[in-house]
Amino acid sequence: MIAAKVIDNIWSTRKADSLRGLKFMLVEVLGGIDAGRLLIAADTIGAGIGERVLVCTGSSARKMLNQENTPIDAIIVGIIDEDCTF
Amino acid sequence: MIAAKVIDNIWSTRKADSLRGLKFMLVEVLGGIDAGRLLIAADTIGAGIGERVLVCTGSSARKMLNQENTPIDAIIVGIIDEDCTF
Amino acid sequence: MIAAKVIDNIWSTRKADSLRGLKFMLVEVLGGIDAGRLLIAADTIGAGIGERVLVCTGSSARKMLNQENTPIDAIIVGIIDEDCTF
Amino acid sequence: MIAAKVIDNIWSTRKADSLRGLKFMLVEVLGGIDAGRLLIAADTIGAGIGERVLVCTGSSARKMLNQENTPIDAIIVGIIDEDCTF
Amino acid sequence: MIAAKVIDNIWSTRKADSLRGLKFMLVEVLGGIDAGRLLIAADTIGAGIGERVLVCTGSSARKMLNQENTPIDAIIVGIIDEDCTF
Repeated sequence: MIAAKVIDNIWSTRKADSLRGLKFMLVEVLGGIDAGRLLIAADTIGAGIGERVLVCTGSSARKMLNQENTPIDAIIVGIIDEDCTF
Repeated sequence: MIAAKVIDNIWSTRKADSLRGLKFMLVEVLGGIDAGRLLIAADTIGAGIGERVLVCTGSSARKMLNQENTPIDAIIVGIIDEDCTF
Repeated sequence: MIAAKVIDNIWSTRKADSLRGLKFMLVEVLGGIDAGRLLIAADTIGAGIGERVLVCTGSSARKMLNQENTPIDAIIVGIIDEDCTF
Repeated sequence: MIAAKVIDNIWSTRKADSLRGLKFMLVEVLGGIDAGRLLIAADTIGAGIGERVLVCTGSSARKMLNQENTPIDAIIVGIIDEDCTF
Repeated sequence: MIAAKVIDNIWSTRKADSLRGLKFMLVEVLGGIDAGRLLIAADTIGAGIGERVLVCTGSSARKMLNQENTPIDAIIVGIIDEDCTF
């Protein structure tokens, strides 16, 4: 997984039918040589802008949803505790 | 997913039979340390040159099509709203 | 797989239900041009902070667990022997 | 997919049995910040040295072959038209 | 696939049960902008230190083994012929 910070909401009115109802967030990778990489991740656990999150990528991202056929490759799977310093 | 801008059409007359009928677009990654990376993504939702899009990569890209055996690894899954600033 | 060093624990109280009970570690890639890349990997074999480990990424990471539907994309699959110099 | 240029043939006499009969080509990524990245891709459509091709990577590469168990992660899926300028 | 050079053996006594009996090698990517990237790949065809090899990554790496549930993401699938210059 990747540690990232939630930067903003991403709005897309014209999108695949299977993505309807999903929330998308712009996240920025934290730390290391990938710091500053941007991804757009689906969110089903209610992460807020500014929070640090765990992002799961690739085919595993689909395992978070009930529907295997949703075309997503990144999803927020957890929120890093505020008092977790790394 | 990746936020990208549609740059151009890509034409390929000699290609895998299973790709016939699919439209391919050259897209450029927007923002972050990957800005300027080029990908070729299939498009089934009618994205136009200059539009900002969401691109899904990897095995999840195949989930957008009805046919699991199509050899694609990137597809446009949404068009980012014009008034979405990020 | 990637050779990495375990840097710290990652704590996440609000996370996907399927991740409950899993331990997460911050690891840093060792050597080569990716040195310094950070990943968060699940750990089921008891790796300690400071140890050098083998990290498996992508869909293969899920094969280490009994449950195919867990949304993880990186897991520690081995601890590199202390007397292994590379 | 990735736009790449075919650079050379790659010969491997000692290889996995399931790879026998497959042709492998060295290709170089064209354009963007990944320009100059080298990959070795299987070729089943007869791409020639110097041609610009579409390369599909990851698990989708296997979908081009009849045999799901072939250990390849990159394959040439199309030849970019000569008059396609990008 | 990636062209790489075998650098060393990697020894791991404490590892996933499903990895027992597998040999692991440290390999270094050859050529292009990824030159110098290090990976740890399983080896079932007897590659020697110093040899140039083809490494298959991702889910396809598992297809080389008889057991789909082995958590590996990179495996040596061929040895590049000595007289193959690229």
